[in-house]
Amino acid sequence: MARSPRRAAGRRLQLPLLCLLLQGATAILFAAFVRYNPETDAALWHWGNHSHADNEFYFRYPSFQDVHAMVFAGFGFLMAFLQRYGFGSVGFTFLLAAFTLQWSTLVQGFLHSMHGGRIHVGVQSMVNADFCAGAVLISFGAVLGRTGPAQLLLMALLETVLFGINEFVLLSLLGVSRGVPGQGKAQAGRAWGRVGWVGADGRPYMSALPPQVKDAGGSMTIHTFGAYFGLVLSRVLYRPQLEKSKHRQGSIYHSDLFAMIGTIFLWVFWPSFNSAPTGLGDGQHRTALNTYYSLTASTLGTFALSALVGERGRLDMVHIQNAALAGGVVVGTAGEMMLTPFGALAAGFLAGTVSTLGYKFFTPILEAKFKVQDTCGVHNLHGLPGVLGALLGVLAAGLATHEAYGEGKSLDSVFPLVAVGRRTATSQAIYQLFGLLVTLTFASVGGGLGGLLLKLPFLGSPADSQCYEDQVYWKVPGEQEEEAQGPLRAEEPDSRA
Amino acid sequence: MARSPRRAAGRRLQLPLLCLLLQGATAILFAAFVRYNPETDAALWHWGNHSHADNEFYFRYPSFQDVHAMVFAGFGFLMAFLQRYGFGSVGFTFLLAAFTLQWSTLVQGFLHSMHGGRIHVGVQSMVNADFCAGAVLISFGAVLGRTGPAQLLLMALLETVLFGINEFVLLSLLGVSRGVPGQGKAQAGRAWGRVGWVGADGRPYMSALPPQVKDAGGSMTIHTFGAYFGLVLSRVLYRPQLEKSKHRQGSIYHSDLFAMIGTIFLWVFWPSFNSAPTGLGDGQHRTALNTYYSLTASTLGTFALSALVGERGRLDMVHIQNAALAGGVVVGTAGEMMLTPFGALAAGFLAGTVSTLGYKFFTPILEAKFKVQDTCGVHNLHGLPGVLGALLGVLAAGLATHEAYGEGKSLDSVFPLVAVGRRTATSQAIYQLFGLLVTLTFASVGGGLGGLLLKLPFLGSPADSQCYEDQVYWKVPGEQEEEAQGPLRAEEPDSRA
Amino acid sequence: MARSPRRAAGRRLQLPLLCLLLQGATAILFAAFVRYNPETDAALWHWGNHSHADNEFYFRYPSFQDVHAMVFAGFGFLMAFLQRYGFGSVGFTFLLAAFTLQWSTLVQGFLHSMHGGRIHVGVQSMVNADFCAGAVLISFGAVLGRTGPAQLLLMALLETVLFGINEFVLLSLLGVSRGVPGQGKAQAGRAWGRVGWVGADGRPYMSALPPQVKDAGGSMTIHTFGAYFGLVLSRVLYRPQLEKSKHRQGSIYHSDLFAMIGTIFLWVFWPSFNSAPTGLGDGQHRTALNTYYSLTASTLGTFALSALVGERGRLDMVHIQNAALAGGVVVGTAGEMMLTPFGALAAGFLAGTVSTLGYKFFTPILEAKFKVQDTCGVHNLHGLPGVLGALLGVLAAGLATHEAYGEGKSLDSVFPLVAVGRRTATSQAIYQLFGLLVTLTFASVGGGLGGLLLKLPFLGSPADSQCYEDQVYWKVPGEQEEEAQGPLRAEEPDSRA
Repeated sequence: MARSPRRAAGRRLQLPLLCLLLQGATAILFAAFVRYNPETDAALWHWGNHSHADNEFYFRYPSFQDVHAMVFAGFGFLMAFLQRYGFGSVGFTFLLAAFTLQWSTLVQGFLHSMHGGRIHVGVQSMVNADFCAGAVLISFGAVLGRTGPAQLLLMALLETVLFGINEFVLLSLLGVSRGVPGQGKAQAGRAWGRVGWVGADGRPYMSALPPQVKDAGGSMTIHTFGAYFGLVLSRVLYRPQLEKSKHRQGSIYHSDLFAMIGTIFLWVFWPSFNSAPTGLGDGQHRTALNTYYSLTASTLGTFALSALVGERGRLDMVHIQNAALAGGVVVGTAGEMMLTPFGALAAGFLAGTVSTLGYKFFTPILEAKFKVQDTCGVHNLHGLPGVLGALLGVLAAGLATHEAYGEGKSLDSVFPLVAVGRRTATSQAIYQLFGLLVTLTFASVGGGLGGLLLKLPFLGSPADSQCYEDQVYWKVPGEQEEEAQGPLRAEEPDSRA
Repeated sequence: MARSPRRAAGRRLQLPLLCLLLQGATAILFAAFVRYNPETDAALWHWGNHSHADNEFYFRYPSFQDVHAMVFAGFGFLMAFLQRYGFGSVGFTFLLAAFTLQWSTLVQGFLHSMHGGRIHVGVQSMVNADFCAGAVLISFGAVLGRTGPAQLLLMALLETVLFGINEFVLLSLLGVSRGVPGQGKAQAGRAWGRVGWVGADGRPYMSALPPQVKDAGGSMTIHTFGAYFGLVLSRVLYRPQLEKSKHRQGSIYHSDLFAMIGTIFLWVFWPSFNSAPTGLGDGQHRTALNTYYSLTASTLGTFALSALVGERGRLDMVHIQNAALAGGVVVGTAGEMMLTPFGALAAGFLAGTVSTLGYKFFTPILEAKFKVQDTCGVHNLHGLPGVLGALLGVLAAGLATHEAYGEGKSLDSVFPLVAVGRRTATSQAIYQLFGLLVTLTFASVGGGLGGLLLKLPFLGSPADSQCYEDQVYWKVPGEQEEEAQGPLRAEEPDSRA
Repeated sequence: MARSPRRAAGRRLQLPLLCLLLQGATAILFAAFVRYNPETDAALWHWGNHSHADNEFYFRYPSFQDVHAMVFAGFGFLMAFLQRYGFGSVGFTFLLAAFTLQWSTLVQGFLHSMHGGRIHVGVQSMVNADFCAGAVLISFGAVLGRTGPAQLLLMALLETVLFGINEFVLLSLLGVSRGVPGQGKAQAGRAWGRVGWVGADGRPYMSALPPQVKDAGGSMTIHTFGAYFGLVLSRVLYRPQLEKSKHRQGSIYHSDLFAMIGTIFLWVFWPSFNSAPTGLGDGQHRTALNTYYSLTASTLGTFALSALVGERGRLDMVHIQNAALAGGVVVGTAGEMMLTPFGALAAGFLAGTVSTLGYKFFTPILEAKFKVQDTCGVHNLHGLPGVLGALLGVLAAGLATHEAYGEGKSLDSVFPLVAVGRRTATSQAIYQLFGLLVTLTFASVGGGLGGLLLKLPFLGSPADSQCYEDQVYWKVPGEQEEEAQGPLRAEEPDSRA
C-alpha cells in the first residue's frame, strides 16, 4: 500500500491531461477540417432560392432532440440502478458521450462525408455522432463500475474509430466493387432518403452512394457492435476477485426508480431513434410506427416472462428496466422496411422474451463459464436483440417485392440497389447477413484491442474491493460520516497490470 | 391462511398467461386487420407525387412524442408519490399503457377507421391510442395500490372498448341520423383538420365525417370518462378495512420529488396533448397557446388555495403535484375554440382552485360518505375539471359566431356542422352538453361492470394490510433486512371474493 | 419570539392574497389587451390562402417545447441539489415561472409587440415569455433557500419589467435614433428571421424593426441580466449569520442525482434554447449546431478542471451539474453567427474551465469579500459565461464579412443593419459591447431595487437558522418524527426589517 507520491500525483493528473489532450486534438482537427454544410451556412444556404421549410433541420431536428435525450438522460439514468454508482453512471455517460460527439464527427466525416477536403456538418451528422455515442455507452454498460474515467475515454477513442470503419464498410463498401457509374468517391451517410442537396443551379451538391447494407436504427452498427465490443473488452479485463464488491452490485429502492427514468426516456423516444436517419416521408413515418408497436410487444413479453420465471411469481425490476426495451433494438434494421404492424409486434415480443430469459439464465453462465462480467446485461438488451434484429433485416430484405414497396421511388428509398436492378432481393438479404458477420468481427477484434489498451499499467482502475463505488472518483456528500464506518477509502485506486 | 399449492401456482401463472393471451390475441387481429395507412406505406405514399413535407408525420409527430412522454413518464411518475409503491406506479403504468396502445388501435380502428375491411394506422392513430391509454391510467390512479396487475389488465381490456364506443358516439354518431349526403359510413377520427388524404388521382383517400361533438383534448372522452370509470370501479371494490394499510398511503420526501417529475412532464407537454389532434395551422397553434395560459393560471390558483387552506399557511405537495395540472384538463374541449387568452386564464384559474378545494375538502367526504377510495384524487384532477371543461365547451360552442371564426374554412375546421349551416351555435352547444351526459353514463356503467369483473374470485388482489406495497408483486431490493422487521410478507396476496 | 396572532395571520394570508391579486391583475390586462395573432386566430389565418405548413407553429413549436421543458424541469431540478429544499426548488420554480409567463406576455407585449393597441400572441411570444422566466429563475438561484415565496413573486414582478425594458433597449432602441424610413413605431421582437407575416393581400401584417443588438439565445439579456440582478439583490439581502443554516446547505447523495435530471434536461435541450428565436432555415440550423458543439467542449473542460482542482483528483458534482452547461450560455449571442464549429468548441471549452474555476475559487471570495451569497453559483454558470458570451458576440460581429455570410438575404438575417450598409461590422461590434454595458447597468440597478423591495418588513423571510429548509413553507411528510429530534420548528419565519 506504500505508493510513491509521484505515482499518485501522476494518476491524479491522468484524467485532466487526457481530457485536455483529447479536446485540444479534436479542436485542431475541427479548425482544419470541419465546416458548416450548405443547410447550415449563411452564405451557401441563401445562395439558392430555397424556402426555409426545405431546410433539412425541420425534417430531422425534432427526432434528433429525442435521440440526444435518449443518449444522455436515457443511458445515463438507466445505468444509475447501482446503489453507490449513480454519479459515475450519469457523470461518465456525460463525459464519454460529449467526447464521442466531437470525435465521431471527425471519424465519420473523414470516412464518409468529405467534400473537397472538408467535413460538412449539420443535423444529419449530429444524429450520426449521437448514434456512435450510443454504441460507446452500450460498451460502457458492460464494464460499468469496474473502469476509471481515463480508461473509458481511451475506450471511446478506439471504439469510435472502429465504429466508423464498420459503419463505412456496411453502408458504403459492401458491393462498391461493382462500381457505380458517375460516382467517383464513396460519400454515403447513414441516410439515403434525402439524396443530395440541390444547389441553386439545380445540380446536386453532393451525390451520396446508396447504402449497401441497410441498418438505419443500428441493430448491427450500434447495438450488436456496441454490445460485443464491450463484452469482449470485459472478458479481457476479467476480475476473478470481483466477489469483494458484490455487496455494492445491486440496487436499492430509489436507485431502481432513477433507473426507470432512463428506461422510460429510452422507451418513449425510441421511435425517433430508429426513424431519425431514414428516408423522409413514408420512411420516417413507417419506422416510427413499427418501433412503437414493437416496443409495446416487448413490454408485454417482458412482464409475462419476468413473472413466469420470478420467485413466487413476482416481477423483477431488472427485466422491466431493460428487456422491455428490446423491442426498439430488434427493429433497428427492419423498422424502415415493410415489416407490417403484425411483424413489428411479433419481433418485439420475441425480443422481449429472449432478453428476459437472457437476464435470468444466460448472464450467470456468461460470467461463470465465459468469464465475461456484464454489469448492465448489455448482452441481453443489445447483443441478442441486435443479432435478432440483423436477422430480421435479412428476412425482410429477402422478402422485399416490387409489389410491397411499389415501383420506382419507393423501393428506391429503402433498397436502392434492388430498385435499379443491380441486386435481387435475395442478394440484398445475403449482403445484410454478411453485414452482421462483419460487425461481429469488428466488434470482437476491437473489443480485444480495447481490453489490452485498458490494461496499460499506468491507467488506474478501481481495486476489486472498490468496484461499483462512487467515492473512488467522486467527492461524495456526507462521506466523512461513512468514512468512520467502513474501510472504503483505505485503498487507493490501483493500477491493474 | 392455509392455501393449496395448486391455487398458489394458479395465481402465480395468472399474470404471465394473461399477458401471453392478450398479446397473442392482438397479434392475430393485427395480422388480419391492421395495415399501414397511405402516408406510412412505401407503395401507396410514392404512388402519388407528394412532397415529403406534406406527410402528416411532420405536422403531428413532435406533438405525438410529447403525448407519449406524458403517458409513460408523466402518469407513471406522478403516481410514484407513494412511499412503497414506486415500482407498481411506474411499472404497471408501463404494462397497462403498452397493452392499451395495441388494443386501442384495434378497437378505435374497428369503430372509426376501417377502410375496405382494414384498419389503417399512422401518426394519428398513434395519438388516439395514447389518448385511450391516458384514460386507462386515470382510472388506474383511482385504484392505485389496491389492485393487482392481472386485475388492471382486465380493467384496461374492458375500459378500452367502452372508451372507443363512447368516443365513437360523441365524435361520429350524435347527429348522424340527419345523414350526410355522399358519406355512407362513419369514418371520423378525433381529428378533422386534415380531412382526407388526397391520392395521386386527386380523389380523397378517405372521407371523414365531421365530429359531431368537439372534444379534441378530451375533457370529456379522456378525463371525465377515465375519472368516473375509475371512481365507480373503486366504489365496487370498496375496502372497509383499508385502515390496515394507512401507514403506507402517504409519501416520503424523495417519493414526492419523483412525483414532481411526473407533474412537470405533464405540465410542460400538455399544450401538445390538447393540440396533437386538432386542425392543422391555426387550430394546433391556438390550442397550444390556450393550454399554455390555462396551466399558468391553474398553477397560481393552486398555490393561492393550497397556502390558504394549509395548516399554518404552508403549501401541500399533493395540491401542487395535481391541482396545478387542472388547467390542462379544463381546456381539453374548448382549447381549440376561440376561447381568447383571457378565457384560458379564467378557466385555468377556476380549475386550479376547484381542484385544490376538492383535495382538501371533498376527497375525505368521497371516502367517508360515498365509500369511494381514490388514491390519487383523480376526482379532483380529472373528474371535476373534466366536467368543467365540458361545460366550458358548451359555453364556447354556444357563443361561436361567424365573426369570431371567420367565414368558410375556419369555422369549418372547428365547427363544421355550424359552418355548413346544418346546426346553429346553440344546437352545437346542446350537442356538447349531451356529449357530457353520454360520457358520464358510459363511464359509470362501464366502471360498474369493471368492478364486478375485477371481483372475480380467482383474480388475486392485495390483502387489506398489504395495499400500497410493492413487495406483493415485485422483488424489492434489500427486502431481507426489512423482512426481519415487519410482518409484511407474512400474508400472501389473497383473492377477495 | 412572542408574536401577535394578528401578524401571524397576516403573514399566513400573504402568499394567497399576493397570488390572487397578481392573477386578477394579469387577467384583467389580458382581457383588455391580449389577442390571438394572425397565425393563431381562426378568422385571420383563414382569411389568407396559406398552406397550413406555413404557420410559424411548425417552425418553432418543437423548439418551444424544449425551452419550456428546460425552464420547468431543467431549472427546477438543477436547484433540487439541496438536501432539504427540493420542494422549494421545484415548487417555487413552478410558481415563479407560471406567473412570469403571464406577466412577461404583458410587459414584452406593451414594449415591443403592440399592434393597434393590442398585444398579439403566438408561439414566438411564448418563447419570449419563457426566456424571461429563465432570467427570473437564474436570479432565484442566487437567493435560493433564503427567501420566501411572496418575496420571490415580488422579485419576479419587478425583474420581468426590467428584463423587458432592457431587452427593448437592446433589440430596438439602440440605433433607432438614426431612423428607419417607413417604420414609425418600434415593433421588434427577439426574432427577425421571419420578418412580418404577410396577409392575404400581400401586405405585411406587421413590420418589425431589425434588432439593433443581436442576442438570440440571451447571453446578455437572459444570463448576464438574470445573474447580476440576482447577485446584487442577494448583496442587499446579505445575511451575516447564515452559518446557522450551514449544515443544510450541502447536498446528499440522492439530491445530487435529482439535480442531474435538471442538468441533463438543460444540456440536451440547450441547442433548442439558443435556436428557438433565430432566423429560420440556416439560422436555426447553425445555432443548434454551434450550441451542440460548444456544450461538448464545456463538458470536457469541466471534467478536466474539476479533477485537476479536486481533492485527491476526484470530481465534484457541483462542477459537473453546473459548469458543464456554461457552453450553452457562452454561445447565446454568437451562436447564430458564423462562429465556425471550431469557434464553438473553443468558446465552450473556455466557458467550462472559467466556470469550474469560478466555483472553486471565486464563490468563496464573493461571499467573504463582497458579501454576496450565491446558493447555486449563478455567477459561475450565468454571470461569467454570459459576459464572455457577450464579448464573443462583439468579436463575431466585428469579424463579420460579406464573404462569410454571403450577399443579400443571408447577412440580412443575422446583421440586417450591416447588410443594408447602415452599419459597418465594427460599429455593430461596438453596439454589441454597448449592449453588454446597458445590460449590466439595468441588472445592477434592478437588483438593488429588488433587494430593497424584498426587505419590506411585512414580507416574511426564513430565519437565519431556517434557511434551505422546506418545512418553513411546505408540509413535509414524516415531519412529526423529525420534529422530535431537532429545533427546526421552534422558530417561526420572521420578517427581516
